[in-house]
Amino acid sequence: MHAKAVALTTRPEGMPTIEDFQIVDIDVPEPQAGQIQVKNLSMSVDPYMRGRMIDRKSYVPPFQIGEVLTGGCIGQVTKSASPEFKEGDYVSSMFGWREAFTESAEGVKRLGDIVAPASQYLGALGMPGMTAYAGLLEVGALKNGETVFVSGAAGAVGSIVGQIAKLKGCTVIGSAGSDEKVALLTTELGFDHAFNYNNGSILGHLKALAPGGLDVYFDNVGAEHLQAAIMSMRPFGRIALCGAIATYNDTAPRPGPNNLSMAIGLGLTLRGFIVNHFDHLADQFRSDMEGWVTSGQIVTKETVYNGIDQAPEAFIGLFKGSNTGKMIVNF
Amino acid sequence: MHAKAVALTTRPEGMPTIEDFQIVDIDVPEPQAGQIQVKNLSMSVDPYMRGRMIDRKSYVPPFQIGEVLTGGCIGQVTKSASPEFKEGDYVSSMFGWREAFTESAEGVKRLGDIVAPASQYLGALGMPGMTAYAGLLEVGALKNGETVFVSGAAGAVGSIVGQIAKLKGCTVIGSAGSDEKVALLTTELGFDHAFNYNNGSILGHLKALAPGGLDVYFDNVGAEHLQAAIMSMRPFGRIALCGAIATYNDTAPRPGPNNLSMAIGLGLTLRGFIVNHFDHLADQFRSDMEGWVTSGQIVTKETVYNGIDQAPEAFIGLFKGSNTGKMIVNF
Repeated sequence: MHAKAVALTTRPEGMPTIEDFQIVDIDVPEPQAGQIQVKNLSMSVDPYMRGRMIDRKSYVPPFQIGEVLTGGCIGQVTKSASPEFKEGDYVSSMFGWREAFTESAEGVKRLGDIVAPASQYLGALGMPGMTAYAGLLEVGALKNGETVFVSGAAGAVGSIVGQIAKLKGCTVIGSAGSDEKVALLTTELGFDHAFNYNNGSILGHLKALAPGGLDVYFDNVGAEHLQAAIMSMRPFGRIALCGAIATYNDTAPRPGPNNLSMAIGLGLTLRGFIVNHFDHLADQFRSDMEGWVTSGQIVTKETVYNGIDQAPEAFIGLFKGSNTGKMIVNF
Repeated sequence: MHAKAVALTTRPEGMPTIEDFQIVDIDVPEPQAGQIQVKNLSMSVDPYMRGRMIDRKSYVPPFQIGEVLTGGCIGQVTKSASPEFKEGDYVSSMFGWREAFTESAEGVKRLGDIVAPASQYLGALGMPGMTAYAGLLEVGALKNGETVFVSGAAGAVGSIVGQIAKLKGCTVIGSAGSDEKVALLTTELGFDHAFNYNNGSILGHLKALAPGGLDVYFDNVGAEHLQAAIMSMRPFGRIALCGAIATYNDTAPRPGPNNLSMAIGLGLTLRGFIVNHFDHLADQFRSDMEGWVTSGQIVTKETVYNGIDQAPEAFIGLFKGSNTGKMIVNF
């Protein structure tokens, strides 16, 4: 069997372009002993992948030119030569950016019973949801009733961060890049306040919307957002450093916040993390989040592109604010 | 009775100068009911005082022009109208920058039995020692056997940080501003490695001296030191943000570290603190530190100026690297 996949042709300089990617044909052979053949249903594009397109040492090794990209995906087993899987099983793996694959069963995780559309296991019920959950509750050490600010709040992670904080009785402020997204936050997603970061100074918005200051800032954006949040923190506030999408296409190092020393007098904690640091919480997360999603307490939003040919455009869209909620490519 | 004191005449711009200070005569009256009269023996000059000379909101209110400065000091009660104090008691207070004072006993703390020269209760056995202790063990969450870097390592705080870390079985690297100080660190104070930060790149020194990376960085200096340390941290490393003396005389905000987002993948924690956040550890600190100092396990260094007239020069010297260990003015 053959399938289409996406390879990296050139390392992007600044904003990625369609020309940095190429659709290629790959072989998807019959599974040998211990292998399974999987047809992907949905693949994820995520901001962190931009970092892997740079040839540098990082927490995940860089993508290689000419090779098929990898990333989160959900599929169904079509043929199994592994005792652990049978045809029709829903599986989660990192063999995204391709319509199908045959690989050792060891690199693939069975999803078991799913309680929502499969693609949501790439969003609220998957890596971004777990990132929100661990980042807010563990890294941010959220306490009931606190004031929380999340940037990129209409995105895959931010939209879940804000809703979990609301479930914990917090006052929640979100920033997003368009008036439409801002409206979504305060209506459908239940945020207390939201603002458009392309309209006015971020610090000005925070002063107006959180005059008493912030206890927790969940940072998906970095740059001006981070500096304004530091300026707005209450004593002993916590900043969960999750991402810095504003800087991912920078071609030179960007200076950091000029007010970091405010952390001294205020006793602030800034703590970086990636979701893998919290694998021990995976079962608890899935149980909690499936409950919240199926009961409607957490609303899940998706922006869907259809077909593998659209995957590069979906990825590039992440940096142009094209997505509301999780950006997904369905096959 | 009259005494000499130091008032602030102008708010320093950049590096403070002698002209920013004035020696004034103050009245030290007979104590009324509830008051005590104290003759100071030693006063402290500390880098944090530079921040109080700026007219801005901070964790301590700014000094006022024309008024006598305040700061840590050790004295002896000369007359008491309080049942809680008697003549000869050693006391600690914030009524420094003056030879003597009469104040309500409530603002003064009895030192009790002292096991070292009084001035050391302004250094290793006082605020700087407590800063080192709480910052390293609580904020830095030091574990035995880790690799620790402390900047400003020949100063009042840094010299104690490094020695506590050695007591905890750590590998300790220090930076200081002269070859003489560097030599002191690796000989008398027992550091494993030290370098002169005025000679070569800080990052280069760290790569050479800690090729396996740092678990804890205790930051007294900020600026280039902080950026180089972030670049050198091991996964899940901790940075205790204690001070940023390199920036205290800045006249405009200075950009922060351009690599702060490295904290994400590495799971780093940066946590600011001031010593007052750890008042609950004061008894434990004094007991531990008196033990270490009297047994010789911790060596205490002082740079001493004599007479209140020298206090402004001692203070300015903090920013010129004039001190090794605690900078003290004895009367």
